[in-house]
Amino acid sequence: MAKENFVEQIADIDADFPQWYTDVVLKTKLVDYGPVKGTMVIRPYGYAIWENIQKELDKRFKATGHENAYFPLLIPMSYFTKEAEHVEGFAPEVAVVTHAGGEELAEPLAIRPTSETIFGSMYSKWLQSYRDLPIKINQWANVMRWEKTTRPFLRTSEFLWQEGHTAHATEEEAMEETMKMLGVYKEFAENCLAIPVITGRKTEKEKFAGAVATFGMEAMMKDGKSLQAGTSHYLGQNFAKSFDIKYLDKDGAQKYAYTSSWGVSTRLIGALIMSHGDQRGLVLPPVVAPLQVVIVPIAQKKEGVLEKCSQVKSALEKAGIRVTLDDGEQSPGWKFNEWEMKGVPLRIELGPRDIENGKALVFRRDTCEKAEYELADIVKSVKALLKTVQKDMLKSAKARRDGRIVYAKDMAGILSGVENGNFVKAGWCGCRECEDKIKAETAATARVYAEGEKSKTCAVCGKKALHTVIFARAY
Amino acid sequence: MAKENFVEQIADIDADFPQWYTDVVLKTKLVDYGPVKGTMVIRPYGYAIWENIQKELDKRFKATGHENAYFPLLIPMSYFTKEAEHVEGFAPEVAVVTHAGGEELAEPLAIRPTSETIFGSMYSKWLQSYRDLPIKINQWANVMRWEKTTRPFLRTSEFLWQEGHTAHATEEEAMEETMKMLGVYKEFAENCLAIPVITGRKTEKEKFAGAVATFGMEAMMKDGKSLQAGTSHYLGQNFAKSFDIKYLDKDGAQKYAYTSSWGVSTRLIGALIMSHGDQRGLVLPPVVAPLQVVIVPIAQKKEGVLEKCSQVKSALEKAGIRVTLDDGEQSPGWKFNEWEMKGVPLRIELGPRDIENGKALVFRRDTCEKAEYELADIVKSVKALLKTVQKDMLKSAKARRDGRIVYAKDMAGILSGVENGNFVKAGWCGCRECEDKIKAETAATARVYAEGEKSKTCAVCGKKALHTVIFARAY
Repeated sequence: MAKENFVEQIADIDADFPQWYTDVVLKTKLVDYGPVKGTMVIRPYGYAIWENIQKELDKRFKATGHENAYFPLLIPMSYFTKEAEHVEGFAPEVAVVTHAGGEELAEPLAIRPTSETIFGSMYSKWLQSYRDLPIKINQWANVMRWEKTTRPFLRTSEFLWQEGHTAHATEEEAMEETMKMLGVYKEFAENCLAIPVITGRKTEKEKFAGAVATFGMEAMMKDGKSLQAGTSHYLGQNFAKSFDIKYLDKDGAQKYAYTSSWGVSTRLIGALIMSHGDQRGLVLPPVVAPLQVVIVPIAQKKEGVLEKCSQVKSALEKAGIRVTLDDGEQSPGWKFNEWEMKGVPLRIELGPRDIENGKALVFRRDTCEKAEYELADIVKSVKALLKTVQKDMLKSAKARRDGRIVYAKDMAGILSGVENGNFVKAGWCGCRECEDKIKAETAATARVYAEGEKSKTCAVCGKKALHTVIFARAY
Repeated sequence: MAKENFVEQIADIDADFPQWYTDVVLKTKLVDYGPVKGTMVIRPYGYAIWENIQKELDKRFKATGHENAYFPLLIPMSYFTKEAEHVEGFAPEVAVVTHAGGEELAEPLAIRPTSETIFGSMYSKWLQSYRDLPIKINQWANVMRWEKTTRPFLRTSEFLWQEGHTAHATEEEAMEETMKMLGVYKEFAENCLAIPVITGRKTEKEKFAGAVATFGMEAMMKDGKSLQAGTSHYLGQNFAKSFDIKYLDKDGAQKYAYTSSWGVSTRLIGALIMSHGDQRGLVLPPVVAPLQVVIVPIAQKKEGVLEKCSQVKSALEKAGIRVTLDDGEQSPGWKFNEWEMKGVPLRIELGPRDIENGKALVFRRDTCEKAEYELADIVKSVKALLKTVQKDMLKSAKARRDGRIVYAKDMAGILSGVENGNFVKAGWCGCRECEDKIKAETAATARVYAEGEKSKTCAVCGKKALHTVIFARAY
């Protein structure tokens, strides 16, 4: 297709990936900048993706025994100081309400950057006996973290997310919950977003402020950088002790609970874009695509064309497929470009000759290939194709990622690895100095431990390695 | 049932309605007080009602051509001053962020009390041509209004709601949208919440700050007071002119759009409680009840009882009914009280003799009547009963309300009417003085115009009446 046919110009994905990203998110109307610096407006096309993400995740949360609730946006500043590491991590990013109802407040209030403290204070009130455990609550909410450098979906002062907060009687149960939700995230990312992820424990430096251990899932973007797509935290008794989350156990003793928390956010939309997008724009996996099929009539003024298109649309709709018919005045070529940019997984082209032959051309956005299908079987074929596209997108993203994981034995290896857009596995002694040195010299950070792998020596100091770590530059 | 069997004591509904309300919302775990004054934690049982409300409304919004989106929480204070009436109405209730990221902000930011201003600023940017109209966007969000006196669900500093914001080419279209959404709310309130509502236009005094006209829906609570359950505003060109929402029309001229906005909130949960609740606690209509059926085994340790209960539960679940089986250690009587307090529409009691006879006892929470049903047909019977309960609850609420609408010819009539817990219809000349006088002397406010009714004279000044108005004390 000739370049001049493109609906909107998008920067070259290889030459300028950041500009390509900005062009795609704005031109496909996923998002716009809000009037306050660092804020975003999630427009209907972007929000529809979020709604599909919510639907899929919420189903999984409920199937694993969680209930939804809603906790207040405003948290007394004094709550943050109760957990020492937590306040250190979040205080610098907090937005503070000092006035309300025309008066200065007695105590300044934080807009939640995360809600461990307020969940903790309520759990302390609700939890009496071992019979009340476990408590497993999730909330869908907005949070605010005042960031210096922001980019739509990836890092904004306000974003949408879900945060699960659970309390358990034992360490084992809380750890089991932490790992179970990490598993839920991984299954969801792979099967719904078609994004292969690596899960594993984070280093002390990279863990959540206040956690005993943080487990993350990392996804490789098309530029080779890593995006932290979700985290699950084992909080031990840290918050239980700070917020007095205690219960009367069977043996008559008062005991502190063990807690966990876990979350994913609208960042996942950024992950989708940078995992699958190409020069033509978005490529969306069918499970979360706002529209799964677009029907573009060819020679739509010819008798019977729009009628047949409407019939196909109705048949697909009845089968539960999200479909639109573009009967606008623009040319088919213009429409092709528009809907390709918007990443709709399948396009059905239907003109007088196709109708006469009982056929339809179907274009796959992921491979950009066209094939002919029998009109009589179109619903069955489309359903099967959507499943194929979903699977193939994961397969292809996984192949791309797996081809870009390398090993390094020393700092030079780490540097050249990440400069060539790879995830780099390297041995690490476990000390903060070596971790800091890698960041200073390569701009790569420790993403997660490579579970089950055992390097012999630290790539920095040469001492005995405690872990094999995946290093990458990250969003 | 003996009073001492009650799981929790609830204040007398007739003697102390406000305390009854507080007892019910707290003891059924719908809600709890948040740590910041005036905030609430919506607990899982309350939030599940909100999820059902959202599901039903969202379906209706989408069916009428609206899309969801998400706009930022923080609005520059300067935006409020652009619409003169709007700032006057909302500035006193605004919560203000003055510091963020460790620094004082150049401009203080308001936490949205409502989002006309920020939607307006974005619509101004997005709207170019008549082809872009109408714009019909809704958002589900939290909002904040700093209130002096607060009560869970009814008036809290933060609450959850949806706000629709639309822009149209003509006055007629914008007005049509305003009335259509009022109609959607009314149909939803009656068919889903089983709450009969009166819709109509509000007086200038009671209208939304910045609207040309506000239409409200009013519901009568069991104490005879009115609760404003939703509003739909025709904004004319007020916000279009303040925020420069303009488009290039077919004739080549730049024109201002006409806008509307409409919203309902978690207040609806308060309306549910006070419309249907009784001395035993909540009475929830099946469409929005978190649980529609509870199965209570009788003599559950007897062989086969729990097994049969589980079979019934699975059969109901498969039919899409929200059901739980209470196999806890408490006595059946304790469970009866507990689930009655929680307002579950139907209870199935199943013991060894019932199973032997192939029967089950079913208790209806709305009428507190029991009847026997064939176990073989239990799914069919329960489905039919849930529909009957839903309809009967509306019918009974409507009968109760209709019996408490009276007419008054003068101030004394208005006063005695509202003191006896009625909605009072009275003629009104249209002047602010008479409206204020009624409020001062009776504590009743003008709820809505009684559409289609024509009183002859104003109940206050005796001059010619412009409208028949429904006066009531209100939440």
